[in-house]
Amino acid sequence: MPSRDTSNNSPYTYYRIIRFHETDAAGVVYFANVLTLCHEAYEAALASAGIDIRVFFGGGPLAVPVVHASVDFRRPLHCGDEVAIALTPQPLDDTTFEISYRLSNTDQKTVATALTRHVCIDGTSRQRHPFSPELAQWIQSARPAPEGG
Amino acid sequence: MPSRDTSNNSPYTYYRIIRFHETDAAGVVYFANVLTLCHEAYEAALASAGIDIRVFFGGGPLAVPVVHASVDFRRPLHCGDEVAIALTPQPLDDTTFEISYRLSNTDQKTVATALTRHVCIDGTSRQRHPFSPELAQWIQSARPAPEGG
Amino acid sequence: MPSRDTSNNSPYTYYRIIRFHETDAAGVVYFANVLTLCHEAYEAALASAGIDIRVFFGGGPLAVPVVHASVDFRRPLHCGDEVAIALTPQPLDDTTFEISYRLSNTDQKTVATALTRHVCIDGTSRQRHPFSPELAQWIQSARPAPEGG
Amino acid sequence: MPSRDTSNNSPYTYYRIIRFHETDAAGVVYFANVLTLCHEAYEAALASAGIDIRVFFGGGPLAVPVVHASVDFRRPLHCGDEVAIALTPQPLDDTTFEISYRLSNTDQKTVATALTRHVCIDGTSRQRHPFSPELAQWIQSARPAPEGG
Repeated sequence: MPSRDTSNNSPYTYYRIIRFHETDAAGVVYFANVLTLCHEAYEAALASAGIDIRVFFGGGPLAVPVVHASVDFRRPLHCGDEVAIALTPQPLDDTTFEISYRLSNTDQKTVATALTRHVCIDGTSRQRHPFSPELAQWIQSARPAPEGG
Repeated sequence: MPSRDTSNNSPYTYYRIIRFHETDAAGVVYFANVLTLCHEAYEAALASAGIDIRVFFGGGPLAVPVVHASVDFRRPLHCGDEVAIALTPQPLDDTTFEISYRLSNTDQKTVATALTRHVCIDGTSRQRHPFSPELAQWIQSARPAPEGG
Repeated sequence: MPSRDTSNNSPYTYYRIIRFHETDAAGVVYFANVLTLCHEAYEAALASAGIDIRVFFGGGPLAVPVVHASVDFRRPLHCGDEVAIALTPQPLDDTTFEISYRLSNTDQKTVATALTRHVCIDGTSRQRHPFSPELAQWIQSARPAPEGG
Repeated sequence: MPSRDTSNNSPYTYYRIIRFHETDAAGVVYFANVLTLCHEAYEAALASAGIDIRVFFGGGPLAVPVVHASVDFRRPLHCGDEVAIALTPQPLDDTTFEISYRLSNTDQKTVATALTRHVCIDGTSRQRHPFSPELAQWIQSARPAPEGG
């Protein structure tokens, strides 16, 4: 289902059906699971760029942990709803980047927005480390084109 | 991504990429999450048959809780792996059915097998209740054809 | 394990052992699960104040959804770690409150901080509604005493 | 909260409050989460026996994956419910053991029963390997005394 329109530098978009286990007894998606949906979109975007996500997330020499996350909820999501998650990465410096997310429903209405900030570290020393070339490439290529560019 | 080959009564098959949040510190999918993958396949199969899964799972007059589940693990699943989940429902009587699942990887090797048993009840009285017509229809139509049929 | 020192208006503190299913293939707690830990602390705080959390979270006339959440991660959490989650609510107006959380390890070091914002609504109309008396009471009583007070 | 009555070889019992994120839109605990509760009880039992569960579950030389699990559901669990999980391990041979679980509510009624089967393997070769001494000791000590013993 994930697709990407590369013709006009639009952000990567990940499509997902809400599943029963993601809901809670209030009948809607449990709040923290919205950040999990965002991370799934990030994983799909990396895989789409050719990055081996098993290595990327599970034991390569570099790790890229989330150091900050925030999310704003506009509309509830129910089991069976289809959500589109558009994401845009943004480098802050050569070890840190942010990803902004917009979740929308099939009426194109915004359901939630979110942000994650990631720092690249050496997996052993836990010290900051510049992005790997493939990560730097993904961050750069997935960004929207500058206006007038 | 889910597809269904209806030409030869093959079971419904749901395709899924393993996501990071489903793994644990042993580096593979946490065991109970395999049953969650199976339930996702069940949800997708119902939706594919035209059943409104928000109503079905969240507050219709009938409920169909899982009363038994079992799962056998053959091979570990890692972040990024693609898994195909083929499921086959089987009625036991007019209030009870089972679903068997086979999870396989892209090499067609069996990763896990599972079974869930479901009982249809009145959501208010919690007493057994015959299947709704749409559920009975799904159970019947998704079954493999009898041999020689 | 949860305890509360009411002698000096210290915040409510919830104690929790990190469980295997909360970790991911990087070997530490999956980022979004830290917000789940915070929500558990909120549930424990409400229950400790005598609020029936089954009704509060699952079908009372009022609902109090999370409309915003943020979290900052300082140190990774591993399976088996004990974490203390101290929380402090703060009313913003008569329909909205925030809770701030500080997670610390057994060395008293801050592991993460987080914030959730909640809006009280009528569960049917989804319109804002003043806090119930019991919720207003909890927000008030769980706040730190004013300085000099 | 976990306690253990060692005076009469009763099984290890783990106490837990059901949390909101464990429920689903049907208003009760999502079925697969009951197995997660069981695994938490297993973790608590190992820790209670002095086993370092961070090492045990996350990267020691031996791994003890679940190869089979089953669960039967008798009564629904709601947010805020307190559940007691009594577990009893049983060796099958020198590389395999099972744990049986009984979940009961505060009325002493059985809510669910479950079983997990575990095989000890070398983490690198993935070949069967005899239990570590500490695991063998736990399996033995946590078993009920033979009748008349």
